[in-house]
Amino acid sequence: MSEVYAARRERLKERCAGGGAALVSRPANIRYLAGAAPSGAALLLGRSEDVLLCPRPPGEEDGPQRPDAELRTRVLDTPDGDAAVAAAGQAAAQGAESLAVEEHHLSVARHRALASVAPRLRLVDLARGVEQLRLVKDEEEISCLRIAAEIADQALGELLESILVGRTERHLALELERRLVDHGADGAAFPTSVATGPHSGRGGHRPTDRRVEEGDFLSVCLGAAYRGYRSEVGRTFVIGTSPADWQIELYDVVFAAQRAGREALTPGAACRDVDRAARHVLAAAGYAEGLGPRTGHGVGLEITEDPQLAPAAMGKLDACVPVTVEPGVHLPGRGGVRIDDTLVVRCEADGGPELLTITTKELLAL
Amino acid sequence: MSEVYAARRERLKERCAGGGAALVSRPANIRYLAGAAPSGAALLLGRSEDVLLCPRPPGEEDGPQRPDAELRTRVLDTPDGDAAVAAAGQAAAQGAESLAVEEHHLSVARHRALASVAPRLRLVDLARGVEQLRLVKDEEEISCLRIAAEIADQALGELLESILVGRTERHLALELERRLVDHGADGAAFPTSVATGPHSGRGGHRPTDRRVEEGDFLSVCLGAAYRGYRSEVGRTFVIGTSPADWQIELYDVVFAAQRAGREALTPGAACRDVDRAARHVLAAAGYAEGLGPRTGHGVGLEITEDPQLAPAAMGKLDACVPVTVEPGVHLPGRGGVRIDDTLVVRCEADGGPELLTITTKELLAL
Repeated sequence: MSEVYAARRERLKERCAGGGAALVSRPANIRYLAGAAPSGAALLLGRSEDVLLCPRPPGEEDGPQRPDAELRTRVLDTPDGDAAVAAAGQAAAQGAESLAVEEHHLSVARHRALASVAPRLRLVDLARGVEQLRLVKDEEEISCLRIAAEIADQALGELLESILVGRTERHLALELERRLVDHGADGAAFPTSVATGPHSGRGGHRPTDRRVEEGDFLSVCLGAAYRGYRSEVGRTFVIGTSPADWQIELYDVVFAAQRAGREALTPGAACRDVDRAARHVLAAAGYAEGLGPRTGHGVGLEITEDPQLAPAAMGKLDACVPVTVEPGVHLPGRGGVRIDDTLVVRCEADGGPELLTITTKELLAL
Repeated sequence: MSEVYAARRERLKERCAGGGAALVSRPANIRYLAGAAPSGAALLLGRSEDVLLCPRPPGEEDGPQRPDAELRTRVLDTPDGDAAVAAAGQAAAQGAESLAVEEHHLSVARHRALASVAPRLRLVDLARGVEQLRLVKDEEEISCLRIAAEIADQALGELLESILVGRTERHLALELERRLVDHGADGAAFPTSVATGPHSGRGGHRPTDRRVEEGDFLSVCLGAAYRGYRSEVGRTFVIGTSPADWQIELYDVVFAAQRAGREALTPGAACRDVDRAARHVLAAAGYAEGLGPRTGHGVGLEITEDPQLAPAAMGKLDACVPVTVEPGVHLPGRGGVRIDDTLVVRCEADGGPELLTITTKELLAL
C-alpha cells in the first residue's frame, strides 16, 4: 500500500504552487494520504520530505490502522502540543516560502498560532484539494466499500430472520450494530437508524423505545465501516401478513424514484440531474413537499462526502465514484418509505452502475 | 428549565463588550445556552433578542432534547445554508457594532464568510467564554451526572456477574453499551474500552478480538450519557481465583495514587497539584515512565472538558466542578492497572469530594 499513499501525496503536491509546502489537518484527509490518522496528528507535505507529526506515538487507541511505514513519523515533545503548529515550524525550517493549509478545517485560533510560529511563511488555502482527490476511488478503495456493503447486507439479512414484533427501535439498532462487528466491521459507519410505524421513512431517525407493531412500516438504515471505508444501506418492510393499499402504493412510488436515481448514474451525468430524476417521480406522484435536501451523496472514508446529489449541486459524476441513492417519503403521523443503496458509478461498457448493497428491494412482509 | 438557559445567556452577555452581540457555534456550548443543539445550528445572542438559527426545523434526528421554548428559533431558507453566516447577517441587521465569535471553533473559511456577509460588523473573539461558564456545574447538571454515573455502575455490575473467560474485548464492550442503554442512557458517553491481559491498563484502548483468559488483568472504562451529561468509570479486575504477586503489588500502587488524587480534590487546590499528588505515588514506586499526559479532566456535556489535571495545567479547582481521577500504569507485554472515578469537588463542610462512581475499587478476582 505504501506506494499508493506516496502516489496520492505526489498528486496533491502537484496541485500546490512551486516552492510551497502543504499541511493536511483533517483526519480523513490525513488517513487518505498517510494510511492512518493518529489522534491529533498533522501531515506535512514538505519540500525536502513528508512528515506525519503526532502528539504521541501512534498506538492501539488510534485503531487498527498503522501509518504508511515509508512515511517519516515525528512525535511531538509535548503530548499536549498542536501538531499543525509544529508542522508549520518544520515547513519554515525546511525553507518553504508558502504553506497551503485546510482553511475549511483549521480554526481561526489555530491558524493564528501557525502564523505566529512561522511569521515568514505565507499561509495560503489548500481548500478542499484532498477532498477532490478522494472523489474518484481506486479499486482497492472500492473493494473495501464492497466488503463494507456485504457486511451490512449480512447483518440486515440476519435481523429479518428474527422475530421483530414487540422489540424496540433502540434494541433492533443495537442488535444490528453488534452483528456488523460480528461480521468483521471496524464498527458502524454511522448511528444505525431503526424507524417503526409513524417514524418510518424519516431520514436519520434516532431509535426510540417504540416497539414494532403489526401493520407497521419498518425502515432501517445502517452501514459498516471496513478499513475506514463506510457503506450505507436502507430498506423499508411491512410488519405482518399483508401490507395495506396505501403502503403498497407509497412503496411503489419510492421504489420507482430510487430506481430512476440509480439509472441516472452514468459518468458525465450532472449531479443535480440524478437528484432531479428521483425527485421528479416523487413530485409527479404528489409527494413534492417534505422531500429531503438531497437524494444521495458520495461515500468513502467519510459516510457523507462529495458529490452531493441535490437540486443545487454543481459538477458531474465520474466513473469509480461511489454514491448513495436514497429517496424517501414520510407522511406525518402515518410513516413512510425510504430505500437507500450504495452504488459505484461505472460506464455502460463496464455494465453500468455497480450495486454494492444487494439486499432485496421488493416489499417484504415480515 | 427555560429560566436556567436564559440566565446562562445573560451571564455570557455580561462578558461581551457593550454594543456587541455574540455568536455561539460549538454544539456543546449551544446546548448549554439553548437546551439543545440541532444539527448545524448557531446561537445568536443579539442586542434586541436571542435567536437559535437552524438549517432545518429541530426534529427527532437531533435527539430527544428540544431547544428552550422561550428562545426564538429561526429556520434558514436553505437547508444547506450556514447558520453562523445567517446569524452574522442578523446581528448586523440588529445594528450590532461587534460580534464575538468562537475563534477556537469557527474555521478560517467560515470566519471569512461571516466577515463578507456583514462587512461593517467588527468580528472579535469570544474565546472560550462559554466553556468557562460551563466549568462550575449547578445542582441540576450534577444530578444528571449522578444519574449517568449510576447507570454506568449498574452496567458494570451486571457484567461482573456474568461469565467473562473466553469472551472477546469487542463483545464485552458491546454488551456494556447495550446495558447502558437498557438502564436509560442516551447512549455511551464515549467508546467503551475493554482491555485484557497485555492490553490492560492502557488508557483509551480500543477493544480487539482478544479473549479473556485465566490470570488476565481486565480493565474496563465506560460511561453513560444522560440528558447530554457524560460520566466515566474505570476499574481493573483479575480473572481467576487469585491474583499474582506482581498484580497485587501493581494494583496497590495505582490504587494509592488514585486515592491520593481524589484526596487532593478541594476547592482552591491547583489543578497541577492534584496531578502531582497522584503522579508522585507512581513515580515513588518506580513507575515514572509511561505515565499519561494527565491524571484527570473535567466532565459535563463533553466527556473531556476543562479543567485538565496535568503537570502544566493552570488554574485552581472550584466547588461543584466534576472531574475524573484516573491514573494508570501499563507494563508493555504484561498489562497493567487503571482506576478511574468521576467526582464532584466539594468543600470540607459539604463532606469533601463527592464520589459519583461507587463501584468498588478493591481488587476483585472474577
